[in-house]
Amino acid sequence: MASPWEELTLAFSSMSMFPFFDIAHYLVSVMALKRQPGAVAVAWKNPISSWFTAMLHCFGGGILSCVLLAEPPLKFLANNTNVLLASSIWYIIFFCPYDLVSQGYSLLPVQLLAAGMKEVTRTWKIVGGVTHANSYYKNGWIVMIAIGWARGAGGSVITNFEQLVRGSWRPQADEWLKMSYPAKVTLLGSIIFTFQHTEHLAIAKHNLVFLYTMFLVGIKIVTMITETATVPFAPLEDALRWILFGWQQQFSSHEKKSEIKSSSRGSGSSTSKSIAGTSDKVKKKHTKKTD
Amino acid sequence: MASPWEELTLAFSSMSMFPFFDIAHYLVSVMALKRQPGAVAVAWKNPISSWFTAMLHCFGGGILSCVLLAEPPLKFLANNTNVLLASSIWYIIFFCPYDLVSQGYSLLPVQLLAAGMKEVTRTWKIVGGVTHANSYYKNGWIVMIAIGWARGAGGSVITNFEQLVRGSWRPQADEWLKMSYPAKVTLLGSIIFTFQHTEHLAIAKHNLVFLYTMFLVGIKIVTMITETATVPFAPLEDALRWILFGWQQQFSSHEKKSEIKSSSRGSGSSTSKSIAGTSDKVKKKHTKKTD
Amino acid sequence: MASPWEELTLAFSSMSMFPFFDIAHYLVSVMALKRQPGAVAVAWKNPISSWFTAMLHCFGGGILSCVLLAEPPLKFLANNTNVLLASSIWYIIFFCPYDLVSQGYSLLPVQLLAAGMKEVTRTWKIVGGVTHANSYYKNGWIVMIAIGWARGAGGSVITNFEQLVRGSWRPQADEWLKMSYPAKVTLLGSIIFTFQHTEHLAIAKHNLVFLYTMFLVGIKIVTMITETATVPFAPLEDALRWILFGWQQQFSSHEKKSEIKSSSRGSGSSTSKSIAGTSDKVKKKHTKKTD
Repeated sequence: MASPWEELTLAFSSMSMFPFFDIAHYLVSVMALKRQPGAVAVAWKNPISSWFTAMLHCFGGGILSCVLLAEPPLKFLANNTNVLLASSIWYIIFFCPYDLVSQGYSLLPVQLLAAGMKEVTRTWKIVGGVTHANSYYKNGWIVMIAIGWARGAGGSVITNFEQLVRGSWRPQADEWLKMSYPAKVTLLGSIIFTFQHTEHLAIAKHNLVFLYTMFLVGIKIVTMITETATVPFAPLEDALRWILFGWQQQFSSHEKKSEIKSSSRGSGSSTSKSIAGTSDKVKKKHTKKTD
Repeated sequence: MASPWEELTLAFSSMSMFPFFDIAHYLVSVMALKRQPGAVAVAWKNPISSWFTAMLHCFGGGILSCVLLAEPPLKFLANNTNVLLASSIWYIIFFCPYDLVSQGYSLLPVQLLAAGMKEVTRTWKIVGGVTHANSYYKNGWIVMIAIGWARGAGGSVITNFEQLVRGSWRPQADEWLKMSYPAKVTLLGSIIFTFQHTEHLAIAKHNLVFLYTMFLVGIKIVTMITETATVPFAPLEDALRWILFGWQQQFSSHEKKSEIKSSSRGSGSSTSKSIAGTSDKVKKKHTKKTD
Repeated sequence: MASPWEELTLAFSSMSMFPFFDIAHYLVSVMALKRQPGAVAVAWKNPISSWFTAMLHCFGGGILSCVLLAEPPLKFLANNTNVLLASSIWYIIFFCPYDLVSQGYSLLPVQLLAAGMKEVTRTWKIVGGVTHANSYYKNGWIVMIAIGWARGAGGSVITNFEQLVRGSWRPQADEWLKMSYPAKVTLLGSIIFTFQHTEHLAIAKHNLVFLYTMFLVGIKIVTMITETATVPFAPLEDALRWILFGWQQQFSSHEKKSEIKSSSRGSGSSTSKSIAGTSDKVKKKHTKKTD
């Protein structure tokens, strides 16, 4: 006999995304597009271009995961219902009289609801991506992580690429692949679900789905209400960074210092400066040595 | 017993494109490449690069449709005969002594013949693309339209992308996906043939092929002779635009106007200006209201 | 009974690339990445971006050939061992205390050994690509050449494209597809192995593998020791250029000259200048004619 908790999580994890959660996802994605400068003008002058961009925003993650697995990138178009749904939402958002939808969306509760439901679809996409990749490569856990990640957060990669081709975006050398918060949390989720799938993590999938979704939605709502741009992963990242790259600092910051004295490479100095901030203790020890 | 009309259209629609129509297509494509500034210089300095670009011009639509259906983009190279044919045409066009081919091509009747035959291949490509996409996705009529379109008019997308990578083209934000006349007529054809294929259009395929081809060739020849850049779709487009986006104008132009007064967004004003031009009657009605 | 030569070449051609030759390949690839300006700073600030770029450098050829054959570009990630190996090498090269690996690599014998072993992997990749393409297209010898070439030298195409997307590289119109020495030698090898595979070249595969590898390694070591940038293909290229494009020069240089007099196209003049340099004899003959 299942406990109420089991029943809740089982019911939650067998919930269908279509249509309400999908609608929320399309709504949030197209509203994000509409807020870009010039998007409204493009929609009036060249509706097909605007529609195409909106589809990339709505189905970007799926397209990227299809490309990475060499499946037809047009696969999403075969699901006529979802394409028509997304197109309708694009249509009413951009061309609704008096801009009613945008005005409705500007209310905080509506935004919270839509954003929360969009985060739910993210879990479903990650799980779908991990499972799908597993059907291709039995032991390819790196592929599973990558596909789960691509499907959950790949939309931003696709839309950035589209902006690049369109000429409305020029990347800076150092902002390429600088991960945003959604990218990080999706990567984390993709790793967790892959470990669950390969049975390295002893937790039932429906429980994990429920917990991870609650985590996503909770963080999202807190971030939106408090309007902070805090990254909840900062401590985790710092720890990981320390484990992976920290132990060399006592060597490398020393080395870098002498390097700066001898040469004056701009890139080198900025690097050692960022290291210097995090390792005061290490530095002092060396100051004695180098002096 | 078939009528003469039936016989004519059946014979026409079972005509083979190879070799004469293919030759006309390659000829027109490579001549279009040769007219680009600097193309001749590139061919002398770096023949491989020039050959590669010429192949993209000749087989671009097929490559794009392969990419979209996750088939090998190199598939066209497996057809050795056609690749050698296209390469020979590239070779004689760029390296023929005294530039004889270009001089021959500058005669109007030759151009008319080649351009007309090239338009015939367009119909064959659209039909091929629609049928091919149908073998993947039974009910995916959106995919069928997209593939028919990609195969018929995708060459320009591929060559634009190649110019972007090469650095010889920088798109403006508003010219991205601004459809040219061939793109529009191919989209129309792709929609028609998809409807024919899904049996929503009660006309035999061979008749439709004949009529659509005659339409394409006729428009092309008239355009070339009169040297007009008129778009025969202008009334149709205006009607469609009115049906889809027109009815909001009485609301939105009103709204936009007050928006301009309160804020001074550049994009917003240019939009309402373009709308203003097409709806004088609507505007007057509002002027009274807003005054 | 096999002769010692046969035994040697058979043993050589059945040698496994994993792990030592693969390590050498990853080492040379990642060191090439590290020498790019700013790469070290990126690795400290954004390790994931740096790791991603390193993987593209290590597996670029395989990724390109997968894309061209519509196989999953993520296929290389399924080979967990090689990915972990390449990641470890990336890690110790970028984050090793005191930069020990870079210092060790700066010794000429180490460089020679690593570069030589990397060239050995090139032969294996070309042969693998040609064989793999043949399994798709039985008679597609153009495809076989293209895939052998892509797998052997496609890494630079992929990394250039990545730099383009990242914004740290802007191509000039005339340097696009200007083939480097590795690209040329790989193309030559790909053609040779394709002809061997289609039995147009009467030589056993293991002999050809041995000879071509020795040729590659020899050229590479001589180039590194003498620090020359001489291209050993210059005579071959000139001969080929003469056969293919030379015979038109007496016509076209004549024509070009009169063209320059009548018009003043910048591109045209630079072309005829480069031609002029190679065909003095031809020119003199024409000077009489035109005077």
